[in-house]
Order: sequence, then structure tokens, then C-alpha cells
Amino acid sequence: MTGITNKGENSVTSTDKYPTSVKIVEVGPRDGLQNEKQVVLTEDKIELINRLSNTGLSVVEATSFVSPKWVPQMADNKNVLTGIERKDNVSYPVLTPNMKGFEAAIDAGAKEVAIFGAASESFSQKNINCSIDESLERFRPIMQAAKQSNIRVRGYVSCVLGCPYEGEIAVEKVAEVAKTLFEMGCYEISLGDTIGVGTPLKAQAMIKAVAKEVPLSALAVHFHDTYGQALSNILACIQLGVATVDSSIAGLGGCPYAKGASGNVATEDVVYMLDGMGIETGIDLQQLLKAGRFISEKLGRSPMSKVANALSE
Amino acid sequence: MTGITNKGENSVTSTDKYPTSVKIVEVGPRDGLQNEKQVVLTEDKIELINRLSNTGLSVVEATSFVSPKWVPQMADNKNVLTGIERKDNVSYPVLTPNMKGFEAAIDAGAKEVAIFGAASESFSQKNINCSIDESLERFRPIMQAAKQSNIRVRGYVSCVLGCPYEGEIAVEKVAEVAKTLFEMGCYEISLGDTIGVGTPLKAQAMIKAVAKEVPLSALAVHFHDTYGQALSNILACIQLGVATVDSSIAGLGGCPYAKGASGNVATEDVVYMLDGMGIETGIDLQQLLKAGRFISEKLGRSPMSKVANALSE
Repeated sequence: MTGITNKGENSVTSTDKYPTSVKIVEVGPRDGLQNEKQVVLTEDKIELINRLSNTGLSVVEATSFVSPKWVPQMADNKNVLTGIERKDNVSYPVLTPNMKGFEAAIDAGAKEVAIFGAASESFSQKNINCSIDESLERFRPIMQAAKQSNIRVRGYVSCVLGCPYEGEIAVEKVAEVAKTLFEMGCYEISLGDTIGVGTPLKAQAMIKAVAKEVPLSALAVHFHDTYGQALSNILACIQLGVATVDSSIAGLGGCPYAKGASGNVATEDVVYMLDGMGIETGIDLQQLLKAGRFISEKLGRSPMSKVANALSE
Repeated sequence: MTGITNKGENSVTSTDKYPTSVKIVEVGPRDGLQNEKQVVLTEDKIELINRLSNTGLSVVEATSFVSPKWVPQMADNKNVLTGIERKDNVSYPVLTPNMKGFEAAIDAGAKEVAIFGAASESFSQKNINCSIDESLERFRPIMQAAKQSNIRVRGYVSCVLGCPYEGEIAVEKVAEVAKTLFEMGCYEISLGDTIGVGTPLKAQAMIKAVAKEVPLSALAVHFHDTYGQALSNILACIQLGVATVDSSIAGLGGCPYAKGASGNVATEDVVYMLDGMGIETGIDLQQLLKAGRFISEKLGRSPMSKVANALSE
């Protein structure tokens, strides 16, 4: 990975380590839709995933194998995963919070799963009633079963730049959780600013701390745009060489005008920025915009993507 | 100006030239409101400017002395400028497109005015029916009169990262127009991405080109968030040492869900980012949020600021 620009003699950013290409992990159909109140039809989820698969995206997180009592939106996980047209060059990870979910995912044909840990003790305690360490230990059987079945596992770390209960989070804690997940066998660690409070220099400090424990090439960033900072934070992280970015088509996952909106960063806006910077994503923005309009129409609203609205037909 | 952080031994951004403080030029009452269709009462404009003056902002662009036939929203310019409570440490520039406007502004007590040139020939021709050079020549009498009256003049350059008619704009052209305005006597040049198409590396390339002709300390950046890129572009520019940023309270100046929305970057979101980066602005974010809510309520809508919505009461 080398700097792709700013190579002029007067460059003041000559130590920037922008990657020449960035892999986008599309999380809209899972992380996005599970935070949408309106129930989306299974056939529409399948259509969305199929459309996203045809944009050039290499990873489309498809669904979550979690109890429908917790997340009713994902109750059709099996029908979604078995209903999509799988492309050979696209990966379709699914979230599996426990062994039961993992087994159901494998039964439905999952080739990749995702697990998650928090970087905040309070968040872990309040959300799943156990410590971070305990939560990670619970994933060990999944990791073992995954290894035996040749299933790739992606690890998420939440609250990396702040926690709704305890505020700022020590970067060392984020690094420790990321390291544990990586050493357990996760091939990639997605670092999530769950509540969107991060700013660019804090994001860089966090990445630097984690990169001491986990190779930079195994790190992904996952920003929410709650405070409008997502794209700036992504810029700050790719400047350090991070080359994997999670994002959500049409900004699925939160309404900007509702209190406590989660607001995933919109894939369209990330791709527009990277395109403009000459950083390859392999994604066709026009096809992406069409996929975003498709699901936004199903939700009966405008896409939460500025690019989509600026280029609306 | 020195880097304020990232000073660790493993720093990969050690050549960043982040300023220790940034001056925000609040353009909401003028650039913002003039693009709003709904007519705002004079007393509400005055109240907005007074509130903004009390946030710690040092510059609040107050109104425009332009023909009411062109911009009906600014027809009350004199009443606004004479109605506000002026604070000693706050500057209240007004836009003066011609000598008639300049004289009216001075009569109304203006101590600072602003003029504007385009970096795009097509934009200049289509909007004011003359070349860029002709448009700049027309400002010479204003510059002379301003000098005699000890009036400070700010210069705007529009279309610095793209033009709706001719697409990309050569950075040398932007530098040339900026240099002309600076040499004519403008103390500060605000470089405007009028249609919001810019991305971070293009913004940096433009700044580098202009900084060869005009001191970096005399440059301001003015980004529109049409494609969601404003904050990233601001980050990229302050990284080079730019220390003046234009922004608009509550994102006044465009609705994100209307075609062709202009979408000024919201002051609240800029200040949130700078606060998080430890860069001083002198602005009280809470007071700023209150001012934004005040005008948004008058316009009958939510603020176009993600921070404002995330922190809504």
C-alpha cells in the first residue's frame, strides 16, 4: 500500500499511507435493516442483496441468526440466505451471536459468520449481562466449530470510540479485545464507533493502538454518522493505511431526524469519496445508487445518502 | 501553527499542520438564508444574528446588499444591519456585489464587506454575463472606496472544485482568481466548493496551488455538503494548515431532500469535529445548538445538522 497522490515536491502529507484500493463491507441488509422499525418483506431483502451483489461489492452481510424475539426483522434469516443468488466472488457473512445461531447459519448454507465483542465493560454488562471476557469466551466453541467446517469468522468490536454508559473508552481496551478476537481466529476485526461520537484524531489514535496488536491489513472500520463525523473518520483511518470500510446502503440503520438515531454511514457517500480520491473499490456507483433507491422506496423514504439525494432522478 | 497531536513515535501523520485554533466564519444569516425559499421575518434574522454573536463566534455574515429583485430574502438588509446588537469583538460582513450595494452597506453602518469572483468562466458568463476578469475589474471601485473608508473586504471565489457547466476546474485558475482578489486588497479569500462535488485530495491539491500565490493564513474554505463530503474536505484542508472555515448554522442554505440542494456544512458539525480534535474555536457548542434550534423552529423544520439532531432535547 502506497500513497496514491500528494506526491508533489511541496507535499505536506507525504507520509500518508492511503491504500490504493479499499474493500467495502456492505452491512445494510443486516446491521442496517435490523435497526429499521418497518418490517421489510423477505423477497425485498433478497432483491436488495442480489442487487448489491451486482454492484461490484465483494462482501454483503446478509442477515443475522439471532432469536426473533430479540430482532424480529431478522426472523426470516434462513429464507433470505437460501433465497439469494450467490455469486462466486461475493461473500455473504451472517451474524451468529451464539452456538445455536451458528448451527442454524451453517444449516442454511452460510460460508462466513460474524461474532461481536464490546470494548466497554458497562455496555457488555448492560446488554448481555456478562463481562467482556465472558462474552468472548462464549465464542470459543463457535470458533472451534467454524475452524472444523472451514467457515471464516469476522469479529466486530463495538463502542471503540465511546460508550453510552461510560463515555470515552481507553484505546488499550479496544486493542485488547481486538487482539483476543484475532487470536481466537477472526480473519478480520471491524472496529465500530457504535454511537458515532468519534472524531478524526481520536479515530487515528485508536487505530494506532490496535495496529500494535493486530496487523493493519486485518482491520476494518465501522462508523456511524450520528454526529456527522463518519466520513471524516473514515478519511482519517484510511490515511493510516486501513483498507477495509463497513458501510450501509442508503444509510440504512437509522433515521437522521429521530432521537438516538444510529445512522450508519451510507455506502454511496463512502464510494463517492473514494472514487474522487482515486482509490479503487471495484464498485459501480450508478448500480449502487439504484440498489439504494430500491430499498428506500420499499421503506417509503428518501435514501439517507447525500450523494443519492444530490443525484436523484 | 503546529500539529496538536499525533506526536507519538510511531506517528504516520507527523507532517500534518493542523492549526491550534480555527476561526469559524458563520455565513448562515446571509449565504444560508438567501437560499431558503421561506421568507424569514426581519426580527427573527436579528434575533438569530444576536444569538450567534453570543456563542463566541468572531465573524457573522449578516446580510447582502443586493437588488431585492434578485434576492427578495435580503430586501431587509438595512433593517437587519441596523437592528442587531453589535459586539465589539464580532465582525459582521455583508455581501456587496456592486458599488450601489457597497454604498448602501456603508450607509447602514457596515464595517466589513465581501465581494465574489468565480473560478469558472462558464459560471461567470452564465450568471453575470461577463468574463471572470471583467467581473473582478468591476470590484476595483469598491476596493478603492473601501480603502478610503477603512472598510475590510473579504473575497469569495466560487466553483473552486467544480462547475455545474464545465465540470472540473483547473487549480491554477482558482489560484489566479484568488491572487487577483488578494492583490486587489481582500484580506481573506474564501474558497468555495459551490456545488459540493469536491473530495479530500482534490481539495488539498487546490489549497496547495492557491497557497503558492496567497499566504495560507489568508485562506478560508467554504464547503457545501451536497455530496456529504464537506467535513472530510474541511479535515483535509485544515491538515494543510488552513485555519479559517466558513459554515452555516443548522446547515441553512439547502434542504437535503430537495433536488439540487445546496447544503452548506452545518456549523454545529464543524465545531463538534474541531472540539473533538482539540482545536480551539472559542465557540460554545451548547449556545450554538440553541441558535440553530431557534432558526430551525422559525423555518418549521429540524436543523440540517447531525449533531443538533443527535443532541436534540
